[in-house]
Amino acid sequence: MPTNHMIVLDNRPEGEPTPSNFKLVTAETPALNEGQVLVKHHYLSLDPYMRGRMNAGKNYAQPQPLNEVMIGGTVGEVVESKHPKFSVGQTVQCMGGWQEYSVINASLPGALKHVNTEKIAISHYLGAVGMPGVTAWYGLNNIIQAKAGKTVTVSAASGAVGSAYGALAKARGCRVVGIAGGKDKCDYVVKALGFDACVDYKEHTDYISLSKALKEACPDGIDGHFENVGGMVLDAVMLRANDFCRIAVCGMIAGYNGEPLPMTNPTLILKSRMTLEGFIVSEHIEVWPAALAELSELVASGKLNPRETIAQGLAAAPEAFMGLLKGRNFGKQLVKLI
Amino acid sequence: MPTNHMIVLDNRPEGEPTPSNFKLVTAETPALNEGQVLVKHHYLSLDPYMRGRMNAGKNYAQPQPLNEVMIGGTVGEVVESKHPKFSVGQTVQCMGGWQEYSVINASLPGALKHVNTEKIAISHYLGAVGMPGVTAWYGLNNIIQAKAGKTVTVSAASGAVGSAYGALAKARGCRVVGIAGGKDKCDYVVKALGFDACVDYKEHTDYISLSKALKEACPDGIDGHFENVGGMVLDAVMLRANDFCRIAVCGMIAGYNGEPLPMTNPTLILKSRMTLEGFIVSEHIEVWPAALAELSELVASGKLNPRETIAQGLAAAPEAFMGLLKGRNFGKQLVKLI
Repeated sequence: MPTNHMIVLDNRPEGEPTPSNFKLVTAETPALNEGQVLVKHHYLSLDPYMRGRMNAGKNYAQPQPLNEVMIGGTVGEVVESKHPKFSVGQTVQCMGGWQEYSVINASLPGALKHVNTEKIAISHYLGAVGMPGVTAWYGLNNIIQAKAGKTVTVSAASGAVGSAYGALAKARGCRVVGIAGGKDKCDYVVKALGFDACVDYKEHTDYISLSKALKEACPDGIDGHFENVGGMVLDAVMLRANDFCRIAVCGMIAGYNGEPLPMTNPTLILKSRMTLEGFIVSEHIEVWPAALAELSELVASGKLNPRETIAQGLAAAPEAFMGLLKGRNFGKQLVKLI
Repeated sequence: MPTNHMIVLDNRPEGEPTPSNFKLVTAETPALNEGQVLVKHHYLSLDPYMRGRMNAGKNYAQPQPLNEVMIGGTVGEVVESKHPKFSVGQTVQCMGGWQEYSVINASLPGALKHVNTEKIAISHYLGAVGMPGVTAWYGLNNIIQAKAGKTVTVSAASGAVGSAYGALAKARGCRVVGIAGGKDKCDYVVKALGFDACVDYKEHTDYISLSKALKEACPDGIDGHFENVGGMVLDAVMLRANDFCRIAVCGMIAGYNGEPLPMTNPTLILKSRMTLEGFIVSEHIEVWPAALAELSELVASGKLNPRETIAQGLAAAPEAFMGLLKGRNFGKQLVKLI
């Protein structure tokens, strides 16, 4: 029985998380019961939603319990199985959490899924061909309802969701404009991801200034927007929104760590007859098969080749997560556990 | 040819409108061309949307031009006609503006409509059986998608839109809770309009306090909300919103006169997976027949008997309009012109 290292939530952050909120714990992996599978994780996904779970207060999901392994998506291989559908050596995906091994009850629907690594690197199942990719797909299709010839935007454009969004929007014939932090990320968004333009929000200190840059990048205005950030970015986009603009609200990472960031001018919702809709992709399982089919094809064909930032070893996870919340990552943030 | 008195926009307000923004003008009514009808106005409707039109800046409609008659809905009687479908003495409805008489090109579709005053007082065609009533209907049906057993709320509950909303929500089996300013209005909303409860926002100085009062009035949370006001009221409602709450954004009167009022915690859009949708009822003409049919029935049967505040004479219109923006009216604000 292999030894497992785990990171548990020791106490809840006030404002920004710090390393002291987390605790590294060691234990033997337990013996399996019937129907269970022992998975050795290759990669752990770090995602902004985890910050929300660390709070005790109202959220869309139960708070992360104290002294339990931090939740998180993982990919890896089966190293022991007491379930007929899984055998040792197979590559799988599960919500294994911040740890090196997990015991999964494979009888629960969707708890453990096979992944095909023939044409797609296993890590992409945590990004473009996983939850972030489907998130982009749902927002673009079901909320923004993107159509050819329209201009659509996305914040955190170089990230896991943003990069998938760009490829999906181009496939639909949209003009797609990113918003990202820093020249390197903006260059990458245009040159590597194929966006039509990208605006560097770090060059602007207020939303009026940022909205002027958006006006240049979106000469026909903005018809749809995917929000990962909130705050100044959302304010600036709203100022450039066309009538009947549709905004998918997926993340408000700018406000996760402290006091809520206000929306400066909600009157624009009325003036431009906008729709804003908050969503969580896990509540829309009906779209996953169609979304994953399209995303798999984009990645397998090389049309979408998203960048990853990979931290090495479980102990690096807290620092990498704090960096993610500050936008220090570049592309999908992963932790390599092998 | 009768003499006509008109109120034109003389200059644009900065902040709150004042009497000096308006100018009273006198002229003879012109001779009619073929297809035209001369209407003598009985009532002029005053509505919050007019404040937006007084600005030069971006809005959902063209700004009210300077030195032209202020726009506005009117009801009255035909006093001269060169159109075969209209004859002297008939009661009609048109966008006649802030004046005693208007010349309407009755050939334009929808420009002049007959109204039946057999069972419904003519003034209600500017309120419950007119634009405000259809506004409530559209928001409740098409955006909020109200269902029996759900809790729905509305700000400015004692007003023209709010009173119709209450009757429509009760007809759908909802718990309907109003928000209004002052004990008199709240008593009226519950006792006369039949709301289940009404919260007096003037008893609260911040949105947290107001949201506590809403919690008492809405023990099962809020499933749908119709926003006429914005600011603190919308903040408080969002804090009490249930998951998947749907908010129709129809007015932001709290912010019409000055700097935009921020939304304090837009992160709640995500946390509660809310939908907010701004709309203007004139862009949804497809619903008017069904909406007016239901509203006519509610008024004719006495189930909806909305209160009116009536200013006397055209010269009283600017003062009455300024009062409307401050919530000094009680129910539908009209100006009687005969």
